[in-house]
Formats: sequence, C-alpha cells, structure tokens
Amino acid sequence: MRRMPITDAFFLIMESRRTPMHVGGLNLFTLPKGVDDASFLANLGNILKYDGELRRPFGEKLKMGPLGAAGPVFWEEDDELDMEYHVRHSALPKPGRYRELFSLVSRLHGTLLDRSRPLWEMHLIEGLQNRQFATYFKAHHCAIDGVSSMHLMSSMYSTNARTKVKISPLSMEAYQIYKKQVQGDTPRRVNPREDEIRAVAEVLKEQLGSTVNVARAMRETAGIWMGKKSAMAVPFYKVPKSALSTQLTGARRFVAQSWDFSRVRAVGKAYDGTLNDAVMAMCAGALRKQLQDQRGLPKQSLKAMAPVSVRAAGDIDSSNAVGMVCVDLATNVRDPARRIRQIKESMDAAKTQLKQMSAREIQVYTGITQAPLLLTQMTGMGGRFPAFSTVISNVPGPREKRYWNGARLDGMYPVSIPFDGAAANFTVVSNHDRLDFGIVACRKSVPHVQRLIDYMEESLVELEDAAGLRTKTGRRRNTRKAAPKKATTAKTKAKPKPKAKAKAKAKPKLKLKAKAKGKTRPKRAAAKS
Amino acid sequence: MRRMPITDAFFLIMESRRTPMHVGGLNLFTLPKGVDDASFLANLGNILKYDGELRRPFGEKLKMGPLGAAGPVFWEEDDELDMEYHVRHSALPKPGRYRELFSLVSRLHGTLLDRSRPLWEMHLIEGLQNRQFATYFKAHHCAIDGVSSMHLMSSMYSTNARTKVKISPLSMEAYQIYKKQVQGDTPRRVNPREDEIRAVAEVLKEQLGSTVNVARAMRETAGIWMGKKSAMAVPFYKVPKSALSTQLTGARRFVAQSWDFSRVRAVGKAYDGTLNDAVMAMCAGALRKQLQDQRGLPKQSLKAMAPVSVRAAGDIDSSNAVGMVCVDLATNVRDPARRIRQIKESMDAAKTQLKQMSAREIQVYTGITQAPLLLTQMTGMGGRFPAFSTVISNVPGPREKRYWNGARLDGMYPVSIPFDGAAANFTVVSNHDRLDFGIVACRKSVPHVQRLIDYMEESLVELEDAAGLRTKTGRRRNTRKAAPKKATTAKTKAKPKPKAKAKAKAKPKLKLKAKAKGKTRPKRAAAKS
Repeated sequence: MRRMPITDAFFLIMESRRTPMHVGGLNLFTLPKGVDDASFLANLGNILKYDGELRRPFGEKLKMGPLGAAGPVFWEEDDELDMEYHVRHSALPKPGRYRELFSLVSRLHGTLLDRSRPLWEMHLIEGLQNRQFATYFKAHHCAIDGVSSMHLMSSMYSTNARTKVKISPLSMEAYQIYKKQVQGDTPRRVNPREDEIRAVAEVLKEQLGSTVNVARAMRETAGIWMGKKSAMAVPFYKVPKSALSTQLTGARRFVAQSWDFSRVRAVGKAYDGTLNDAVMAMCAGALRKQLQDQRGLPKQSLKAMAPVSVRAAGDIDSSNAVGMVCVDLATNVRDPARRIRQIKESMDAAKTQLKQMSAREIQVYTGITQAPLLLTQMTGMGGRFPAFSTVISNVPGPREKRYWNGARLDGMYPVSIPFDGAAANFTVVSNHDRLDFGIVACRKSVPHVQRLIDYMEESLVELEDAAGLRTKTGRRRNTRKAAPKKATTAKTKAKPKPKAKAKAKAKPKLKLKAKAKGKTRPKRAAAKS
Repeated sequence: MRRMPITDAFFLIMESRRTPMHVGGLNLFTLPKGVDDASFLANLGNILKYDGELRRPFGEKLKMGPLGAAGPVFWEEDDELDMEYHVRHSALPKPGRYRELFSLVSRLHGTLLDRSRPLWEMHLIEGLQNRQFATYFKAHHCAIDGVSSMHLMSSMYSTNARTKVKISPLSMEAYQIYKKQVQGDTPRRVNPREDEIRAVAEVLKEQLGSTVNVARAMRETAGIWMGKKSAMAVPFYKVPKSALSTQLTGARRFVAQSWDFSRVRAVGKAYDGTLNDAVMAMCAGALRKQLQDQRGLPKQSLKAMAPVSVRAAGDIDSSNAVGMVCVDLATNVRDPARRIRQIKESMDAAKTQLKQMSAREIQVYTGITQAPLLLTQMTGMGGRFPAFSTVISNVPGPREKRYWNGARLDGMYPVSIPFDGAAANFTVVSNHDRLDFGIVACRKSVPHVQRLIDYMEESLVELEDAAGLRTKTGRRRNTRKAAPKKATTAKTKAKPKPKAKAKAKAKPKLKLKAKAKGKTRPKRAAAKS
C-alpha cells in the first residue's frame, strides 16, 4: 500500500458524474498483410489480458478512509483482478467509418470508471473499413498523465514491422525493459517532494519565504490580478464569458484529425515561433470562427490553459508531473498574422517566468495559482468563474513509424478532459511525421465539434497565406526540406478559393481532395461523432 | 412542468455511481426473410429517432432545486432533444454469439444515464449470428417500471408479420393509439393520491388512524419484527448474511434464458401453486446451489423481495405503481418439494395480507415498511442491513407471437436493478409460450452469474422429478395440453444422469442437447457475459 500524491488525488476530488476525470487515447492501426483479422485481434486481446504483475498502478485499486477522496488516498494491490472486465472487445456498426468510430469513443469516454477496481479500461475495436482496427485506452487522470500514457503506449510498439511483442504493455516486465531503454545511464532529476506540494495552503505559508523564485512568480501573477499590464495571461483573470464557459453535462463528443508535422512547423517558423505557437494559433482561429458562427464571440480574448511537462527526462514513474501556463489566444484579433504574434508574445512571457523556476518550483507555483480551480470544479461553479476558456495540450510522441506486432500505427489521438468553464479540450500528439489531434468537448455546450476540424484547417491555410507559404494557385511553397507525404485537407465551404485550388494542377507532393458538395473528407480521420 | 411523485423520485435519491437505478430490456429479433440487414436496421433507427412529441417523460428532463433529488423534483420539456444521442447503433465483435451480446449489455447496463437529458437510451445492436438482431432499451426507474416498459414495448409490436409500424414507440401518437386499444371503455381505477404517499412519516401519522387496513398490516409486520411466529416474511427480519448481502460495485453481469411457459406452470400446478411459485422455487434452488458452491449457504433462509403491480387495468400513465412483498425462499431446506411448499406458504401469507388492502393502501404500506431501505441504500449500509437477499420479479408480457415491422420477436429479457444487500436480480417476462428470464448481478459479488442459469434448469428438473412429471428415462410427462415447442436444456455437469437422457431416444416433442464437454448450450440464450 502506498499513498497517492495529492496532485494525483486532485483528479478524484474534482470528479463527478457530469465531469469524469479520466484521460484516453484512440490508436488507429492497419492489419498486417495476409493475416486473419479475428485471430490477429484475439491474439492481441490475449496479450492485453496478461494478469501477472502489472506496472503501477494498473494492478492496484483505490483505498480511501471515511473522508473519501478528500482524505488520504492509497493504492493497494487488487487481489481479484478481473482482466475480462478491463480488456474489452468492441465492434463498430456498418459501414465502419471514422464517424462510427468517433461515435463509439465519444460514448466510452463519457462513462465513469469503476472505483472498486484498477482505474483503466482497454478496448479493442473491430469493424473499421480498409483493414484498419483501433484501440481505445482509458485511465483515470489520478493514475496517468499525457506523457506517462505515451511512455505506456511506446512500450508496446516497435519500429520494426516484423517484431513480435508478446508481453502486455501494462506488465511490469514491459515496464522494466522500457525503463532500461529510456533511462540508460542518464541520472534522474529529482521530482518535487510530496510534502512540498501536499497542501497548497501549507506550501504557501512555509515555502514562500524561502523559495524566492516561486515568490517572485506569485508577485508577478498577483500584480496582474491587481491590474498591472503584462503580456502574460494568468488564470481567472479576464477570462470572458463564452459558450465554452459553462457547466458541463455528462455526454461527450470526440473528433480527431492529423496534420503534417512539417506543415505546421513551417507556419511556426514563418512567424519566428515554434510548432506549439502554430498549434495554438490553429485552435485559436478555429474557436474564433466557431463562436462567430454562434454569434457569441466575446470581445475579450479567450484564454487557454497549456499543460507544461516538468517530468524529468528518465522519469516514467510519476503519474502527474505537469505545470500549467495560461495563454492569451487573441481570439478578438481579426488578422491571423497579428493573432499568432500576440499568442507567441503571451506564450513567451509565460515561458520566461517558468525558466526562472525549477521543475519542483513550477509545480508548487501551478498548485498555488490553480488552487481555486479545484474549488470551482468541486462546487460546480467553474462555468461562472472560469480559470481559462479551453485546454490546449501538446504531448511529444514517437518520432518514427511504429508497429504493434506488425500492425502499422496510423494515428494516436488523445482523448482528454473538458472542465466546467472549459468545455472543449484540444490535445495533440506528435507522431512520426504527423500531428495527431484529438478534440473532446461537452456534447451539449459545443454542438458542432466536427466543424472545429474544418476551421483548424482554414486557420492554418490563412496563416500560410499571410506568411506567403502558399502560391496564388493554392499550392503550398515547399519551405521545409522534407515534402509532406500525407494528404491534407482544405476547407472549401466558407471560402470559394479552395475549389479553384483543387482544380489547379497540384504538385504530386500535395494532394488536395475536394468533393462536389464542397465539403472535404479529410483523409486520415475526421467525421461527426 | 409537472412534479415527480415521491415514489418515483426515490430512485433518484437512492442512485450512486455504484448503484445506477435504471431498468433495461434486451429484445431479440430475427430479420424478415430476404431483407438487407443494414437498410432494415437503418430504417428502424430512423423510426426510433422521431423527435416530434414524445410520450411522457421521454421528451422531458429533470429539474431540481438546490436540494437536488432530496427536494421537490420536476419534469420539464427538453427543448434541445438530441435523438442522435438517445438512439444508438452498436455492434457485436465476432463471432457474434449470445456471449458477446450479454457482455455488451452488461457494460451498457453498468453506466449512469446523463441527468441533463431525458433519462433513456435505445441501442440497436447488429452483428448477431443467424440473422438475429437486438435492441437494448434503458430508462431510469424514476420514469418507468416493469409493467409500463411492457406497455411501451407492446405499442411497437404487431401480431401480424406483415404490419409495418412507422411511428416510434416513444411517440405521443403511438401512446394514444395504444391507450385506446388497451383502455377501451373500461373505467380506470384511481391511483394513490400523491399526498397519500408523499412523506412516509406524514402518512404514518395522519393516515394510520383512519386507514384501518394499513394499520392492521403494520401491526402484523410489527408483530413479526417483535418475534411473533408467522409464515409471512417481512423486510429486514431474519435476512441472513450471504454473498448477496454486500455493498455493490459499479460493474454488472447479465445473462438471459428462456423456459417453456407450460413446463414451469405444470410444476406450479403439481404443487397446488402458481406459475409464480414455481419461478420462485427455480430461483431459490439456483441460489442454494450457487451459495453451496461458494461454501457460503447461510443457515437461515434467503428472503426475496417480489414487486407486486398495483397498477389499475387501464393505467398506462403511472411511472411506478408497485407494491412489494417479502418471500421466504426456504434455501435452508434440502428437499425441493418441501422447499417449494414452504415458498408457497410464505407467498400465500403475503397475498392474504395484500388482499385485505386496496391498491393505494398497498402502496402506503409498502412505503412504510420499505422506508428504511431508502436510508440504507443512501448511506451505503444496505450490505450490512439487508432488507432482503434478492429481488424476484414477474412481469406479464404479450400472449401472442409478436413482430416488429416483420422482424420476429424471439425474446424479451428484462435487465433490472441489484441493490446494496441484494446483489442479484431475477426478472422474468411471460412472452407468448415462453418465460424470458433476465438475471443481472454485481460483477464482483456474484462471480459466476451464468451458472445460475444452469442451476435454475437443474432445480426445475428436481421439482419435476419429485412431482413425477418426468419418466425414469428422463423424459418429461406430457401433463399439459400443449406440447413444449421450444428446446429446453439439461444441466449435465454435476449430475451424470442427463447424459444418459441425451442418449435416450427422446420424444420429438422434447429436444435435449448435450455437448461432448458435458456443458449444454441452451438454444435460445445462455452464455457467459
């Protein structure tokens, strides 16, 4: 039995039937050539059902005292592990498009985990078109964060299509093999001590005097709360009312889509920024368009919470090692180029502040500034006092093409958590030469999640146009060394231009598909859920 | 907006993430000859997605005050009805046996309904073998009880395979047509007045003086609580500790099976009892065997709660019109014939008491004696102070073969609610010439639910043997006018006899199937979930 750190237990305390606090991941695969789908999947199922020693905490269940999650929480070994319960075989109804897949994932993501068992489920999903299949993995956020779920998934994949991995990614054995690979001889950085982050109030009292950096950061934040002018956004400050600032209902809607890594990075570079700045700008542009559609674009800019991993390089053990920064999305700025510059400025200010702090100081600082979030979530007042408008999270994934027992990994789409007051979550994983976006939102507050995908593409095109990355005939200039191998999509509904683009003779490196209806079906994954 | 009766709101108050309070029904169909499955199901889906005026309360959502379900609760029109959310298309993984179907239903039944929407879901399930398909309907018990769900389902079926019903069973139109058919000119009995049953304490105080019959019933019950000897079982009295008397976990396991109506009724008659006595004895025998397996058969007999419909003949409007009686299952009696007689005696005592009361008096009396149940469920202490050991419920269904737009209705299996302290629920629907049993239990407390099916068959055979309804070669004597048309199953594992039976030349009217492994695959539906 071991005590759960309070930073993990936060997610148990914040949870309600309206706001489940688990994270998920949808992975898409293509069956190896020539195999029989039923027996191939049955074999994967058997691998996943391994019920020997599991990595922590996947063989452990919660143990709470009379105060429930508000009191001390412990993990203890589950002696009655029932793998038939945790590993589930599911199927899609015909015709087995991404639409049916996203619909299933939306439903699976909206239901609570059973707290009397280890807090995870793994779904093997058959019935997709084109010899594809999928897995949807769901685990409580008190047990895993984005980066540690990447570590978990990575241990089951190989860069070699011929490698057969017979051990479960959840097994202690897989964990130990992977740990050796990852850590090698690098000395591990020290994680924040439990007592440093246990009680935010105590930390504030005891640590602020001695921890100069945290004190300085707090002074800056407090200064902005008091009205000091700064490019930096801070939680709870000037977060406008919008359709996103609402109390959630229990149902979710999930959509996913991939973009070329090089394409998005080129946009970042063109504005002297990073890939992440471009990601933020894509989401900001899409939210602006979406709220304009609903005639509900607030005058003040939306603010995004961006989790920042403070995980030490070799640390694959901590469940949550995340700090948070607040970013101004400049959704009140019409000009796309000006918008991305303002986003970058806000991001840079936050980064400067973070750079002055150590990993453990960042977590302490995050704990202090986010503490009111816990309160507003628990009382259901997050809709009235939003800490931020949305979450945009960027998780590094594998850099090479991966295979799972010969099945090609086609996409790994995160399925994260919307909060009261932040009804949509954008999480992106860099996967080989692509960026895999997963967007999950409250089904009621954000009625047309699938449109966000189209609007993100539109926003990206606008940024490319403004930076001169596209020629007038609609082709993108090949600014990066590698030509994009994957097809991209063009939004053709709102603007008449792309239709002309589709007709224009595209270079072989860029495939644009436009349907007669004027709506583009993205190649990888985009559909209504 | 209309106020929800307190008897309905009970189910909202009692609900937790461990103990969802919805009821369900799994209906099994065979596709009409020659139709394309995908388009036939798509058409049914479209019928179900009708979003015009719906019968109450399927177009309404909850409205609660600051006290939540503990305060007054109202139904109000849902202006944002999202039928794509409520009507869901699902599929079974290969090979699409009943095992996969029960597994899916177990999962679907274990998740909570979204309280921000009308409290129901309808699942169309494809992927079954032998051109079958299924529906699983789930609705909150505050909105519907067993009998009213039968009324709901009946309005979508026809006795004619050629009849096409194009309106949704949930529509107000279907409701009005059905209401006319059912009620005709019969005058409606009056339902209990809301104020009579609103606050049990008030009722106790105000009504007991004047309502002689309730007072007499209470005196009898109190007498038994005080130790007076009686054949009648009363809630909370001498309910033994067993594997069933436990706090539930969130996960469920569901199995279903059909028996010939005439076969079970013959057993009832043979002991001068009713079909229901035989049903009780089948369940009692199965529970006795199951607890013996676990070396946990209590010395005192298990007690079953049996809901008794007090619905007026033409009343298809009340959500809940149910009284409850407590039945001694005589699980401590070894001899099957003695056991069924003791069950019958206990049931008769309860009936005698009920007969002295009017429908409204039964509901008042039930409210009073069951009030502590609400308390133990809300505090999670139902495992320590069980009101009864299990629920055994018998709901009358259609008497003729039914069709849904030409698809033959092969079975209608109820999926009901286990409680803290009563971890398994047996509900049976009489459907044409069969009895369709649905058993749902806590996945953790009742580990081998599928065995209950085998043990029920064994118990039935024992009762037949003891009554001389079977010849020595294992054939059942044809005591009833109608020969059983459906195959029945024989348990061949524990007892060597049935194997010999299988070899014996059976009359054509009785088919016994025994597999080499010694385990029988029931014809209609029985498998692990």
